[in-house]
Amino acid sequence: MTEINRKITLAARPVGFPKPTDFRLVEEPIPAVGPGQMLVRVRYLSVDPYMRGRMNDAPSYAPPVGLGEVMVGGAVGAVVESQHPEYPPGQIVTGNFGWQAFAVADGRDVMRVDPAIAPISTSLGVLGMPGLTAYFGLLDVGRPRPGETVVVSGAAGAVGSAVGQIARLNGCRVVGVAGSEEKVRHVVEELGFDAAFNYKTTQNYVAKLRELCPDGVDVYFDNVGGPLTDAVFLTMNLRARVAICGQISLYNAERPEMGPRLLGLLIQRRARVEGFLIFDFRDRYAEGLRQLSRWVRDGKLKYRETIVDGLENAPAAFMGLLRGENLGKQLVRVSAE
Amino acid sequence: MTEINRKITLAARPVGFPKPTDFRLVEEPIPAVGPGQMLVRVRYLSVDPYMRGRMNDAPSYAPPVGLGEVMVGGAVGAVVESQHPEYPPGQIVTGNFGWQAFAVADGRDVMRVDPAIAPISTSLGVLGMPGLTAYFGLLDVGRPRPGETVVVSGAAGAVGSAVGQIARLNGCRVVGVAGSEEKVRHVVEELGFDAAFNYKTTQNYVAKLRELCPDGVDVYFDNVGGPLTDAVFLTMNLRARVAICGQISLYNAERPEMGPRLLGLLIQRRARVEGFLIFDFRDRYAEGLRQLSRWVRDGKLKYRETIVDGLENAPAAFMGLLRGENLGKQLVRVSAE
Repeated sequence: MTEINRKITLAARPVGFPKPTDFRLVEEPIPAVGPGQMLVRVRYLSVDPYMRGRMNDAPSYAPPVGLGEVMVGGAVGAVVESQHPEYPPGQIVTGNFGWQAFAVADGRDVMRVDPAIAPISTSLGVLGMPGLTAYFGLLDVGRPRPGETVVVSGAAGAVGSAVGQIARLNGCRVVGVAGSEEKVRHVVEELGFDAAFNYKTTQNYVAKLRELCPDGVDVYFDNVGGPLTDAVFLTMNLRARVAICGQISLYNAERPEMGPRLLGLLIQRRARVEGFLIFDFRDRYAEGLRQLSRWVRDGKLKYRETIVDGLENAPAAFMGLLRGENLGKQLVRVSAE
Repeated sequence: MTEINRKITLAARPVGFPKPTDFRLVEEPIPAVGPGQMLVRVRYLSVDPYMRGRMNDAPSYAPPVGLGEVMVGGAVGAVVESQHPEYPPGQIVTGNFGWQAFAVADGRDVMRVDPAIAPISTSLGVLGMPGLTAYFGLLDVGRPRPGETVVVSGAAGAVGSAVGQIARLNGCRVVGVAGSEEKVRHVVEELGFDAAFNYKTTQNYVAKLRELCPDGVDVYFDNVGGPLTDAVFLTMNLRARVAICGQISLYNAERPEMGPRLLGLLIQRRARVEGFLIFDFRDRYAEGLRQLSRWVRDGKLKYRETIVDGLENAPAAFMGLLRGENLGKQLVRVSAE
């Protein structure tokens, strides 16, 4: 290959909300493919809230991105050159290829994608990590039972929109919380949520939750955190379960945000709050993908994608995601088919 | 009976920390015993942190004490008159008899106490609700495994001191947090905790926890809440479990106390926080009491009592408990044997 690779590196650690100068577009030769390796030409890149955490030099469940290193991220593309027997040229694969046009991979943590099932972009969304996060986080951590009320924050995002639909498929009443009238309409009218509200224009979250959840809240799937989560704690039923998936409202805080101390409510309600990461369900990805694929095929699980064109626009797409500008899965189209 | 009953009623709802005038000592005739009832002469009355919540006119897991009503509370005493076939005069019984010298009971929620097993005061402590709270809260909610590190706050109290010893009996490293040097010495030297510290004289809780828990914290049994709980969250291991039993540091707050928002840590650590009430384990009290009695008999589970004499001193004993002045179980001796 004589083509040039383009990649987005971390130029500076953001203080608060990321800005364009925290990223740098770099061009360099495409690396050579060695034995057991393959070269992937990326078609779609995923931007996700968790990436904000990787930009900080702080201990977490995964090491931070180093300054000058390519930004981490899941992507899907086609093998264009291969010295790996299991991944011939033409094979569509998904993996943590990073924010770049070409990636060399060795097969670890790479998964084959079957374009016959659904558009390959879904391998980064409803049939990828966000879908699996919704599936295992709701069913295994939240454990909703038919007839229970499930509240999901970030309801119109890639994870939240799947959570709400899977809860409906399990016989639950589902109430979504999202950040625009368009999103509220989308989750109710197109995705079939029972109700939803716009947290940006709602004054009293507790009153609104009581109105939309007349039987109280049994399961809360939290992508957002902050005052909304405080309000849900106040409306929880006996033995409620809270699955903490993300806390996007806090990711750009420059110092720890303060909130009322609410753990005492867990005693009254005998409630459980549990954090999870999708990687812990690695051994069951196949099970999850099988079920998610069936639901997508049968039209029972719908998804939306918000696609930005061009690798150079990945930082803008990511910042838009942090501002909640996406409907459904936020993707960057890196190359045409 | 021609004797006079004495009881302590709730005279006013406390604002913040309770004061003597929130209680009133009332004298009145002893009520008549009807069919199916018994009259109990109280020997010991238990004062417990949960009672602070019952003094507020706020929704909780149990209705508040009404103004002018006798204060709620567990007590133990002897049946002195009976029209109940199962509880003859002389039988020692424990139940929610309230802050009074004599109580009429009908057998519901009354348990027989065998004075041959241990002093009858233990039916309010290590062989009563506090012991059962420690037993089920630690083993069923905290679920410690041998070799794990368990941290318990309120370590020298009736519940905390049992939690630490039961954790040791289960092969765990146990670190206690208490509010005086005497309590710290007591839990380490007499109860066998591996380590303990005084939260009132420790500047940096996180540093101290890291020092005393070199392998991190796997289980946290929380009686206290507040900044100490924040610090434990920061030292939790992967898959840590937090059993929320009480939040005594917050019970007298006049408005919700604020603290850093820490739910995001639960994601990184895949940790679980769960509130519980001992009443939920009602069906297993017999199992718990059997095991606790065995440990007490074999000298494996030690207990301390702090006893104040005279029903009229119950408010002072309760206020002392809220200030952490007790070592072990705080009791009020209402009548001599």
